[in-house]
Parts: sequence; C-alpha cells; structure tokens
Amino acid sequence: MPIDIVTSFIEAVERMDLDHALSHLTDDCEYDNVPIGKVFGRDAVRDTLAPFIARFEQVQWVVTHQVGSGNLDHGVVMNERLDRFRAGETWLELPVAGLFLVRHGQISLWRDYFDMGALTRMFSADSH
Amino acid sequence: MPIDIVTSFIEAVERMDLDHALSHLTDDCEYDNVPIGKVFGRDAVRDTLAPFIARFEQVQWVVTHQVGSGNLDHGVVMNERLDRFRAGETWLELPVAGLFLVRHGQISLWRDYFDMGALTRMFSADSH
Repeated sequence: MPIDIVTSFIEAVERMDLDHALSHLTDDCEYDNVPIGKVFGRDAVRDTLAPFIARFEQVQWVVTHQVGSGNLDHGVVMNERLDRFRAGETWLELPVAGLFLVRHGQISLWRDYFDMGALTRMFSADSH
Repeated sequence: MPIDIVTSFIEAVERMDLDHALSHLTDDCEYDNVPIGKVFGRDAVRDTLAPFIARFEQVQWVVTHQVGSGNLDHGVVMNERLDRFRAGETWLELPVAGLFLVRHGQISLWRDYFDMGALTRMFSADSH
C-alpha cells in the first residue's frame, strides 16, 4: 500500500538513515516545503535534508493521522505529523501536514505544509 | 463516506451558504487554524468564518488531493487545497492542507495547516 512506503520513509528518517530514506524517492522526486520552495531530484533532497538533520541528535516524526488511496503504481498519502528534533536536552517541535504521491513504489512528490514562523521560532529556540 | 461530508461542507462554503456549511459540523466542533489557534463549537466557527468570508465577493476552495479512511461514524479525511478569495478583480490564494475528523456523519475536528506569512501577504494584497 502507498501508506507503507511513506511509513518506511519516515522510519528511515527517524533512524537518521538518509540513504535508506532516499531510496524511497524517485530519481526526479519533487520535494516542496510550501513556505520555502521546491527542490527536484534525490540529490537535491539529500542536500536539503542532510544538513537539517545533522543539527540534531535525535529525530521523531510522530504521525498523528495518516490516510491514503490508490495503489503502489499510483497512490496518494497525506499525514498529519509533529516533527520533533532533539538538540541536547531540548525537543523542538514543528506541526506539519504532508502530501506524498507514490509512483511505481516510490515517492515522486513530497510536499509539507507548515508555518514558516513556527520553523523560525524552532531554530531560535535551538540557538539558546 | 467521510470524504462526501467534507466535499459537501466545502461546496457550501464556496456557495457562501454558511448555515448549510455549519450544519455539517458537530455542536462542539474544534476548528484549529494551526498558526493562529483553536475555537470550539459551531457558533465560534461561525464567528470566525463569517467575517472572513464577508470580506470577499467569491470563494473557491480548489481541492487538489483528498484522501479518507473509516466510515461516517469514525472517519478521517485530509485534503490539499488552494483556497481562493476574490476581492474585486483580484483573486487571493492561500495554499492549505486540512484534516477533518468525522463522527456520526458530522465534522468534529477541522484543522488547517498553512503559512501565517502567506495569509498576511494575502490580506495586504487585498488592501491595495
């Protein structure tokens, strides 16, 4: 099911196993952080995600709701998440709603909706 | 299906038929605009939505993806939307991801994820 692809992707991110996470994306995957912008391609996703993840000692993406339709060839998954990042003793949290399109067993589009101000506040909390 | 309840709700908003739209919500519905805050109850949703809608001559909530699970007693729906609002000749647009929980045929939770900066820019465009 498309949901299983997304769950496996998120679990790999939580293990900070970027190679395995990125193996779930198509070569030309579109990664769209709505208030920031889009990048295209697995390498561009790595360049975006790797330095972000590297700032933190632990990552938890808590999926509070997740729904999907279609099949592995042509699927749609959306989830509501609380993306949590641990810096030292402090957990920083970002509420996110994500959309994933699945094509032939891989994620071809990953689009996250969140508030840019919440991300900015998260990073300024990290700097204290 | 839970998706049909949400579709009917959105279509009523697009007709600016708030009475019909609100009839799809439970009495104690939670309405959560994530970067702004929550209100509880059908009357509070009306007080939030009515003055917002009244600023505009036309409303289109274009659903680009929508997925659901469960049944009318206990359902989950998520959608990706482009909420469009016409002021004079100008269409203002806000990208949104929404979560809806359906209980006994009504929406008990409506939670929208969007960027507060995008909403602020939308309103400042409206003032020109």
